[in-house]
This record gives sequence, C-alpha cells and structure tokens, in this order.
Amino acid sequence: MTGFVSFVGSGPGDPELLTLKAVDRLKRADAVLFDDLSSGPILGHARQGADLVGVGKRAGRPSPKQDHVSRLLVDYALTGQRIVRLKSGDSGIFGRLEEELTALKAAGIPYEIIPGVPSAVAAAAAAGIPLTRRLTARRVQFVTGHDVSGALPEDLNLDALADPMASTVIFMGKGTFPRLFAMLEARGLPASTPAILAEEVSGPGQTITRTTVGALAEQLAAEKGTKAALILYGSLAEV
Amino acid sequence: MTGFVSFVGSGPGDPELLTLKAVDRLKRADAVLFDDLSSGPILGHARQGADLVGVGKRAGRPSPKQDHVSRLLVDYALTGQRIVRLKSGDSGIFGRLEEELTALKAAGIPYEIIPGVPSAVAAAAAAGIPLTRRLTARRVQFVTGHDVSGALPEDLNLDALADPMASTVIFMGKGTFPRLFAMLEARGLPASTPAILAEEVSGPGQTITRTTVGALAEQLAAEKGTKAALILYGSLAEV
Repeated sequence: MTGFVSFVGSGPGDPELLTLKAVDRLKRADAVLFDDLSSGPILGHARQGADLVGVGKRAGRPSPKQDHVSRLLVDYALTGQRIVRLKSGDSGIFGRLEEELTALKAAGIPYEIIPGVPSAVAAAAAAGIPLTRRLTARRVQFVTGHDVSGALPEDLNLDALADPMASTVIFMGKGTFPRLFAMLEARGLPASTPAILAEEVSGPGQTITRTTVGALAEQLAAEKGTKAALILYGSLAEV
Repeated sequence: MTGFVSFVGSGPGDPELLTLKAVDRLKRADAVLFDDLSSGPILGHARQGADLVGVGKRAGRPSPKQDHVSRLLVDYALTGQRIVRLKSGDSGIFGRLEEELTALKAAGIPYEIIPGVPSAVAAAAAAGIPLTRRLTARRVQFVTGHDVSGALPEDLNLDALADPMASTVIFMGKGTFPRLFAMLEARGLPASTPAILAEEVSGPGQTITRTTVGALAEQLAAEKGTKAALILYGSLAEV
C-alpha cells in the first residue's frame, strides 16, 4: 500500500494567495509536511486531526539535511496516506524539489505537483510594477544568491546578470549581494540601476524599498538583517 | 467619483489555479475586462449582473490596439465601479501591464495588482519537473519569442539564452523558434539540449512533449500549429 504525495506551492505567505487547488489538497491530506515560510494560517485549511509536520527549512537559517526531509516524506507516504508537501512560493523554484521527487520515484510513490504563486512575482505585484516591459525588459530571470553552503555560487552567468535589459530577481541573496554587485559592476552594470528590496513579501511585516543596486550593496554590506528578502533590479518601471 | 481596478492574474487556465484573492475580487467586481485565455469557467466566479467584457488578446492572433484596451479600462473605472482586469498567468509577465498602469495613473485611478500562477511555472509542474536544480540550473529565465509585430525581437541577449546552465522558458515563441535556435546554436547551445513543448497548459487540450531543441526547431519549421504554447529548454530534470 503506497500513498500519494501532492507537492503544493503555498505562494509567498499571504493565505489569500493560495490557489483553490492548494486548499483542496490541504483539506484532503492526512499529513502535511511544511517549511517554516509556508506555515501559519495556511495550515488552517488542513482538516482536524491531520498530522502537521514542520521540516524547518527557512531562508537564512541552516536547513535540516535534505536527505532527512526526503526520507521523512517517503516514510509518511509509505504508510498509505495522502500527503501534502507544502513549500513556499512555487515548489519548482529554489525549493529543492528535485531531490524529493527523486526519492519518491525510487520508492515507487506516485505524486503530483500543484504550482503556486512564486514569491518573485508577488514581490513585483506588491511594488506595483510589471516584471516585463514591452521594449526594455523582454527577459525576466530568477537566480539564487547562495549555494548549499550559504556562499555566492561560483558558476553564476555574470554577463546574463549584468544585463540592464532584463528584470532580475535574486532569491536568498542579501548576504552575498555586496560581493555580487562588485562583480556585476565590473561587467558593466551601472551602480545607478534601479533596485527594489522586498522583505517578508505578502506578510504582515512586508517592506518594499526602492533604491539602486549601488546603494543597496552599500546598505547590505553594513547591515544584513535576518528578514526573508528578494532583491529586484534592472529595467524596473517607475509607474 | 473614481472606481478601483484590481489587476488579477488568472493563472494558466485551469480554474482551480485561481488564488482565493482572485476569486474574492471576481465576486465583488461590477465589471470584468478579460483576455481570451482567461475566460471560460473562471468568469463563473463573477456575480450575476456583472459586465463581462472580452478584450480579445490571445497569443498567436492579432491583438486589439493596446491603447484601445487601456482607454476602455479607464472609461469603465471612471464610472466609479469596481473593475477586475483579468489577465492570463501572472499579469506582470508578458501581459502588457505597464501600459495599463500608466493609463490609470494618468487618470488618477487607484489600483492593486493580485499576482497569479505564471503559465511557465504551471508548464513545469505539468511536466513533473522543477525549474531550478541545485547544481545545474541556478538561473531561470522567461523570454518572449515575439515583439509587437510578431517577429523575433532583435535585441535578445543571445549569450544569456544559449546558457545550458539555466532553465529557459520562451513565451509566444513557436513561430520564431527555428530562427532563434539557429542563432543559439551558433553561440554554443548544443542541439541535443533537452526541451519540452507545453501546449494549452493546464487546459483540457494540454500536451507535454519531451524533445530536444534541435528536433523541436525542425518540427516547428515544418508545422507551426495554432495552439498557445511554451517552450522550455536547458538543464531540465529527467525525474
């Protein structure tokens, strides 16, 4: 007897940004394995008596071993239950989804993926801007600012990221942005390029700060803070 | 007396991929201005008696003049009503959102932006793959395959798009992909790079075809088809 796993993107945090399908899967789950950022009122959609299991991954803090999370997910599913694996934003974007899919596949457990509203998209909406612009931002890119060890990844495509004709969103990049900016400036990205620091997007502590990449790098070098944040820069509309 | 406009991303088409907030705004709207791709059962959430106004933008077909859509939106809002401007996917991604925001701002009409599930994210979920991979796809990029005239944009960042270490999603790019692929191959993108053609994502006619960029370019040169489609390529997991 094998269970079934629904990977569900919870959206950026605002419970109203759950999809109808996400709510349906939460209501029908026997167990919900959730990350910290997808907890709170969102879990209120789970039925009374469902197991709610925090697996504690949170931007900026050490994560539990991914192997451990995958093992726990397989163990729950093997009891024959309906499992929701809740991940913040969209689970396919910087959510370590592949490792968990691979573990389920190896164990012969069926699954589905329910897409969610990515936090990058919610950040732009909160800032009141589109991520694409007809003539000046035909490309949108999302990139992670840290690798598994927390350092700036060594193999980033700097030319792609230094392109002022794209809208770029850096996930989990507050700590490494000063160093990244220095590398991008050397590749031609002007320090005056518009930037937005979006913290705790769609949550009660949301702040949206308009700045420039140069000023933001200085600010973050002085004070890193601990809030979950996204950095947007490039051809951002000043609507 | 001025109205209020909610820009609402309807998600990729499946009515169950609407957010709770989108449903709320549809229920409370006096008028809904919608694109073709965000119509159907989704409009069933609007209250009886609400004006439902198709503004007819659809991938692959000539669009009504954007000026005309913006003017219509302003005219509706100036009657003092609550308007929902429904756009498929997320309205900030290739949705011509900026032009409409600018028109509202010029007319002094307040608005909000409700993010939605982008079709690119839904396509990856339907294909059963993550858009990011821990070591081999740290960057995700969305790009449009046609400009306002329907041609391949001349100012694409070809090096960024030829990077096999990114996951790339091309919107509205079936017609121009053979030419684009030739340019990317000249920049070093191997013809054997994995690709997915995702048509009518999340709708009843959804098809997901696994191929390679080289084979896809040949296929699309021979037969373009008329279905709305996304092209994904790069380091795509074979989970």
